[in-house]
Amino acid sequence: MTLDDSSLQKYGFIKRETLGSINIDPLQTGGLLTEAARQALVEWGDGYSVCDFCGGVLDQIKKPPIHDFVHKALPEFLGCDEARVTNGARESKFAVMHSMGKPGDWIVLDGLAHYSSYVAAERAGLNVKVVPHAGSPEYYLDPEGYGTAIEEVTKESGKPPVLALVTYPDGSYGNIPDAGKIASVCHEYEVPLLLNGAYCVGRMPVSAKEIGADFIVGSGHKSMAASGPVGVLGVSEEYAPIVFRKSVYSKVKEVELLGCTARGATVMTMIASFPEVVKRVRNWDQEVENARWFSARLEDMGFIQRGQKPHSHDLMFFEAPGFYEISQKIKKGRYFLYKELKERNIHGIKSGLTKYFKLSTFGLGKEKLGVVADSFEEILKKYENV
Amino acid sequence: MTLDDSSLQKYGFIKRETLGSINIDPLQTGGLLTEAARQALVEWGDGYSVCDFCGGVLDQIKKPPIHDFVHKALPEFLGCDEARVTNGARESKFAVMHSMGKPGDWIVLDGLAHYSSYVAAERAGLNVKVVPHAGSPEYYLDPEGYGTAIEEVTKESGKPPVLALVTYPDGSYGNIPDAGKIASVCHEYEVPLLLNGAYCVGRMPVSAKEIGADFIVGSGHKSMAASGPVGVLGVSEEYAPIVFRKSVYSKVKEVELLGCTARGATVMTMIASFPEVVKRVRNWDQEVENARWFSARLEDMGFIQRGQKPHSHDLMFFEAPGFYEISQKIKKGRYFLYKELKERNIHGIKSGLTKYFKLSTFGLGKEKLGVVADSFEEILKKYENV
Repeated sequence: MTLDDSSLQKYGFIKRETLGSINIDPLQTGGLLTEAARQALVEWGDGYSVCDFCGGVLDQIKKPPIHDFVHKALPEFLGCDEARVTNGARESKFAVMHSMGKPGDWIVLDGLAHYSSYVAAERAGLNVKVVPHAGSPEYYLDPEGYGTAIEEVTKESGKPPVLALVTYPDGSYGNIPDAGKIASVCHEYEVPLLLNGAYCVGRMPVSAKEIGADFIVGSGHKSMAASGPVGVLGVSEEYAPIVFRKSVYSKVKEVELLGCTARGATVMTMIASFPEVVKRVRNWDQEVENARWFSARLEDMGFIQRGQKPHSHDLMFFEAPGFYEISQKIKKGRYFLYKELKERNIHGIKSGLTKYFKLSTFGLGKEKLGVVADSFEEILKKYENV
Repeated sequence: MTLDDSSLQKYGFIKRETLGSINIDPLQTGGLLTEAARQALVEWGDGYSVCDFCGGVLDQIKKPPIHDFVHKALPEFLGCDEARVTNGARESKFAVMHSMGKPGDWIVLDGLAHYSSYVAAERAGLNVKVVPHAGSPEYYLDPEGYGTAIEEVTKESGKPPVLALVTYPDGSYGNIPDAGKIASVCHEYEVPLLLNGAYCVGRMPVSAKEIGADFIVGSGHKSMAASGPVGVLGVSEEYAPIVFRKSVYSKVKEVELLGCTARGATVMTMIASFPEVVKRVRNWDQEVENARWFSARLEDMGFIQRGQKPHSHDLMFFEAPGFYEISQKIKKGRYFLYKELKERNIHGIKSGLTKYFKLSTFGLGKEKLGVVADSFEEILKKYENV
């Protein structure tokens, strides 16, 4: 191709079709910008904007208060000794895995772990041992499974895994595992634990210290109302010198962060949203109540919520026999639900899904959740006699 | 600390003091957003916005046209076979180094390489052999130095380096090395070459193929008018299967990219600015003319431009004896220049510098460059008789 005017026409400013819809995609509900973040985005949008204020170390910038955010607010918020802002939760996980292990070592992770935990381990050259869950309908994760997995790794490879990881909650069912117990089990074997909190940090109260996790990972774009890609990483005193080791070439630069990470709109939107994020976390009980209320409404329609029940997170997985039956009866059936919802300005259930889908109720409030539940009911009714 | 209202007050929306100034910091001139990017920023700012349109692989999203941008426009723009959007130039470099080498292997890089090239090599566990430059005043990089360095590595370690890197141009003097010759030299030894184009891709015409580079790296926030952190990576057909290898766990996800990279405002601002970036690259001769004109004006004031002369890039390094003399004569002398420029709404020479500094003329145009040069003159005059 040639980069002429005609071929360039498709680039430039592009409208976002889903803007303004009720979005129940779990990827999106916790990443919607606050008004303060929206302002920060415009203010700090240019390239490398915060570097105007940098003396050589991003997290030492005093004004804007990146230093205090990273070294005071974040450790308090995450319940850890040392924290950094990264380019995302997966980048945080990779930094830990790459620091803690070397190629050929093993990591233990839960059977509901996000694909990016596997890929991060693979990139670091680590072998993966999975702690199985109990399967449908609860997908329960037995903390003792970590002990078994660690023993298996030790037996098979001659040494314990370099790290264990638990997804808290997982991104499929929104299950909250007993991370405290898992930490105890791992520590019995002297295996450090990483808590992948991409769906918890910024949504619900969590403290690495209270749980006993050695590492905690969060996602700015998923759960902290920040413009992505951006994440956070909290580390205990014990492992901070390993993960945040300095370069032999540039004494102030941290190797695993490649010197600098989020240094423009991403970190500034995270900081902008932070006061509201702290507040919304305090409102978590209401979010859980909303999730349960919504789940109950869907169960009244004959849907079945998979995963923990009663549920303790906004991310939920449903089996929807009513929708599935419709899809079997009509032409191009599997796309009807996406279209019907789109007409009602509701986004977030992937096109083509009808029988099983996940969604999130986070931050929507009962009014919008009511609109979604009513729409589900309407759609079921519309096709009742087809 | 407690995260109470009082301690949270310092976060939230924060004004950017340098907004609206004439910014001559080389980090900033190429990253200023275009109007289209500014609109895209607001439109796509929320968390993970583009994921609404994703079927599982970020660079396969058809609408918005991320697929065509990544697989058609970028390879054409970079002169390479395969391209990806990454979280930044350093992340691109690390992905290549981590794919091409294993801990203990060697890399060869130029003596003017950016610190992040060293840190990326260090993170990948690679040893670094430096190709020396000729020192002041030109800092000339002899392409034959790559041959010598490769031979030294082979002699010392028993095998050739896994990669060579050249910084094109470097971030200190803005020197454009003879990359074509360097590629030939490296290829004589069958060592692949990475072109670090953080200060060229998006500013000046460049083609990995024409140069003969196997990898090309660019920076969105530094030189492509995009909101950071975001970068690009171009790879030749030969090495694409290595660098963009897929995960054994998730068949569609690329390991070195941890599955997904820039997936919100960062990629969308890059796409938004792209048509204008393509056009400004065509205007490069004018940019070089402006740089030379500005350099000549400063030399008329007794300043000395270090690095290649005549210069062929907007990034330039100056020795300013006039400013240095003033700093020696007055109280708190070394900060006078920063303050004087700040009063004139000019930003980009680091606080405390007077004798040596770098700056960039990119995109400013002769009018603003004239304001900067006039200001320099005024300041020299103001302190003439102190």
